[in-house]
Amino acid sequence: MKAKVLVRLKSGVLDPQGKAVLHAAKSLGFSGIQDVRVGKIFEIEFESENSDAVQQTLKELSDKLLANTVIEDFTVEL
Amino acid sequence: MKAKVLVRLKSGVLDPQGKAVLHAAKSLGFSGIQDVRVGKIFEIEFESENSDAVQQTLKELSDKLLANTVIEDFTVEL
Repeated sequence: MKAKVLVRLKSGVLDPQGKAVLHAAKSLGFSGIQDVRVGKIFEIEFESENSDAVQQTLKELSDKLLANTVIEDFTVEL
Repeated sequence: MKAKVLVRLKSGVLDPQGKAVLHAAKSLGFSGIQDVRVGKIFEIEFESENSDAVQQTLKELSDKLLANTVIEDFTVEL
């Protein structure tokens, strides 16, 4: 089965990459944009079709490898 | 209103970052993972609440700035 993990900076954490995109958008003439935040998406393919086991694995994997939980939050989508 | 743009490598394009995550996961002892692909998520806040206009702006913005359409696909979510 396929699953997704979204990793985003926590809301209080500054996002210079998002700010750079915001400024680039403005300088290209796009108006009306208030804020941009950039995150990562991991699309992961598992051999198992057992969604409980996959969800558990994904939580551990995100905690240990995919996200830096000091500054990032993650959400798992099956 | 808030919107999201997901930017992913096209299916035929090699993803060394995904491969690195796959190997790291295996070396941490996670088994049963077949493939990992890594993409980007842009969370964008607009002043406008007009979803047609926002969608149009997002498509242009993704085409011009957020995605490299030679190797990447994007999807817009409102």
